[in-house]
Amino acid sequence: MVIIGGGFGGLSAARGLRDAPVDITLIDRTNHHVFQPLLYQVATASLAPSDITVPIRWVLRAQENVRVLLGTVTHVDVAERTVRMDAEPHVVPYDYLVVATGARHAYFGNDRWAPHAPGLKTLDDAYEMRRRFLMAFEQAEAAVDEAERRALMTFVVVGGGPTGVELAGMLPDVSRALRRDFRNIDWTSLHVILIEGGDHVLPSFPAHLSARAKRDLEELGVEVRTNAFVTNIDARGVMVGDGFIPARTVFWAAGNRASPLGAGLSTDRDQAGRVPVLPTLQVAGHENVFVIGDMAAAVDVRGVTVPSVAPAATQMGNVAAQNIVRLIDRAGQPLERFQYVNKGELATIGRHRAVANFGGITMQGYLAWFLWLLVHIMYLVGFRNRAAVLLQWAYMYLTYQRGVRLITGSEAHGPPASGEWSLPEPPP
Amino acid sequence: MVIIGGGFGGLSAARGLRDAPVDITLIDRTNHHVFQPLLYQVATASLAPSDITVPIRWVLRAQENVRVLLGTVTHVDVAERTVRMDAEPHVVPYDYLVVATGARHAYFGNDRWAPHAPGLKTLDDAYEMRRRFLMAFEQAEAAVDEAERRALMTFVVVGGGPTGVELAGMLPDVSRALRRDFRNIDWTSLHVILIEGGDHVLPSFPAHLSARAKRDLEELGVEVRTNAFVTNIDARGVMVGDGFIPARTVFWAAGNRASPLGAGLSTDRDQAGRVPVLPTLQVAGHENVFVIGDMAAAVDVRGVTVPSVAPAATQMGNVAAQNIVRLIDRAGQPLERFQYVNKGELATIGRHRAVANFGGITMQGYLAWFLWLLVHIMYLVGFRNRAAVLLQWAYMYLTYQRGVRLITGSEAHGPPASGEWSLPEPPP
Repeated sequence: MVIIGGGFGGLSAARGLRDAPVDITLIDRTNHHVFQPLLYQVATASLAPSDITVPIRWVLRAQENVRVLLGTVTHVDVAERTVRMDAEPHVVPYDYLVVATGARHAYFGNDRWAPHAPGLKTLDDAYEMRRRFLMAFEQAEAAVDEAERRALMTFVVVGGGPTGVELAGMLPDVSRALRRDFRNIDWTSLHVILIEGGDHVLPSFPAHLSARAKRDLEELGVEVRTNAFVTNIDARGVMVGDGFIPARTVFWAAGNRASPLGAGLSTDRDQAGRVPVLPTLQVAGHENVFVIGDMAAAVDVRGVTVPSVAPAATQMGNVAAQNIVRLIDRAGQPLERFQYVNKGELATIGRHRAVANFGGITMQGYLAWFLWLLVHIMYLVGFRNRAAVLLQWAYMYLTYQRGVRLITGSEAHGPPASGEWSLPEPPP
Repeated sequence: MVIIGGGFGGLSAARGLRDAPVDITLIDRTNHHVFQPLLYQVATASLAPSDITVPIRWVLRAQENVRVLLGTVTHVDVAERTVRMDAEPHVVPYDYLVVATGARHAYFGNDRWAPHAPGLKTLDDAYEMRRRFLMAFEQAEAAVDEAERRALMTFVVVGGGPTGVELAGMLPDVSRALRRDFRNIDWTSLHVILIEGGDHVLPSFPAHLSARAKRDLEELGVEVRTNAFVTNIDARGVMVGDGFIPARTVFWAAGNRASPLGAGLSTDRDQAGRVPVLPTLQVAGHENVFVIGDMAAAVDVRGVTVPSVAPAATQMGNVAAQNIVRLIDRAGQPLERFQYVNKGELATIGRHRAVANFGGITMQGYLAWFLWLLVHIMYLVGFRNRAAVLLQWAYMYLTYQRGVRLITGSEAHGPPASGEWSLPEPPP
């Protein structure tokens, strides 16, 4: 059988099949699992990429019935029961299939905004955000023109969900840590704006926590604009309704679109491109195909719409694994119907505040932040990462120094100088 | 005054001018100083990039008389006394100039080899080596063709100096740590070949240490070929004399070429593009221009040719700084003539062996390795990095696990799938 995707859903499905009589092929586009809930910390130069990633092979090293392949799946043929990929062995047949390829950020049909407002789904996205964030200060330090300097010191985050709130909340804090290093920057001109189309930030949280999050953000110096709609984004800035915000750095945390592999699985997809699944997580008409995680439009057995969060993906992976075992058994045992267990919601705001909601029990401020810290470290995959992240955070909070302020990639250097200095870049 | 380059030489010159009545502008192509002697550990997925780098601004944060600019210097005009760069402010005038832009690897006129045999001078180089090293195993794991699989498991390192020896020595060790994660690979087919044109590896070391290093490498499983000349490198492998070695992964550690900025400083350059300097480290005819580090062809006051190593660059930076102070003083004090203090040479071979030479006192094996560890940690710039590297190494040596096995960059993923999944890459 084949699992596509090594995120929370795919890994959980693989682990759930540990003792099953199956030969699993897990295919991922990268060699690493990313702990996505902490990606924003890499994007804001607070954690190193290796702190929140772990090789997929390493996670599954002890599980004898899995082989891991690195490559991009280009097509699923449900009639032929094969998966096509861009690397050897190119075609992989399956009897059972779990699709867990997640979602990408999307721009509500405005793909031309993409170059000006990167989103945050993969580690490469986080590198790109980090590069832009740090480069804005480098350029502001050297900028001669006053208007240009103000635009460089303006950071706009589009989208008031957890990712947007967490990104926006980190920007003033991390900028504060950089103050001593940049001498020409007028730090009073630092302007972080969070734009949300709805009435509240963190719309999935209870109203009083949304209000608290807004107040916390404002105390950190973030301007929060609700009921505000982005109508255009270009290299100069963001148009919000009729008003233009000159800004060189815009981050996108507003919309998602499920992996395009869904097109091969079902003609019936929702507006975010997600594949509707039965409560058993099967695709209607294909009892051997399961779709889980952010790629699935799932309504659980009680009628609850399953949110696109890591715990839901993990739980779905488990249920898909159990159902595959039952199908293989052919003992006629009815398949399990997915019931989402909401373990609670957490979002941090800046350095030591958070809001938390556990089925009606709510928390805010420092206590919620501490809880957030514990939960995230507990869930980080792999011992090493847990220890490294804890140390990194401890060091960060004690010293305010950012050890991971790397600007990398050829774009960080500007165009190469002429002559033998600029050797041609090796091709893939 | 202007310092170009934030490596060992440039930083040492800046620090040496800490109390001098000068306004220093330090320009670098990147925002970070790299601890180059440990770059090979990043290339072999043993250390994280942030472990061996530190922001240049952070190093100089307390030094009031330095401003740091990020950008590539494209031209030095010694008549006009200006430096041109690709970022604001584009033109920087100077009264005194220190050029410390180092060297790049070079292919003895065979630049077409570059795409097939990357060298190791910058952090981006190390990312590229790491990507190729790890991708070779990923591809070998999936490869169907037996000859292709053998070529993927063959790693050729060209150049038997310290960098080549250290790279080649790490490859069998790191590969060993990966064994459990790759199930299809026939590890007996792993073939690491070190190619050196001269009689001995580590030619700058005493003969018995060179012999010891060769024996150590061979015990680790490295095939050492001396008196062997590379006549061609292409995508299929390496031609050595008349024999062809099919190999998908070739690393270049054989030749250097100084930064092309030298062309603007002097018409008289040596065959590696380095600028000859007076014992005072000035360029003949330009008493206000100093060239230091790997970019300088320097013979010290005793007639010793100064080697291209980090301690020499640091010492030269110090002397250049002192001489600038004396020139500014105008007290007629004669300039200091550079005398290179050879603090010794160290090279590690694999996991716990090294050879060391301290002015005739030589060491080898485990003791030399331990010394190497101490020296390198001692010299790492910045406390955080020292602690992080020590922890990382301790963890690595205890568990053999590699936490930094990240394959990143778009090339790691293969070509993107069609459809909305592949958003256009944001431009610079």
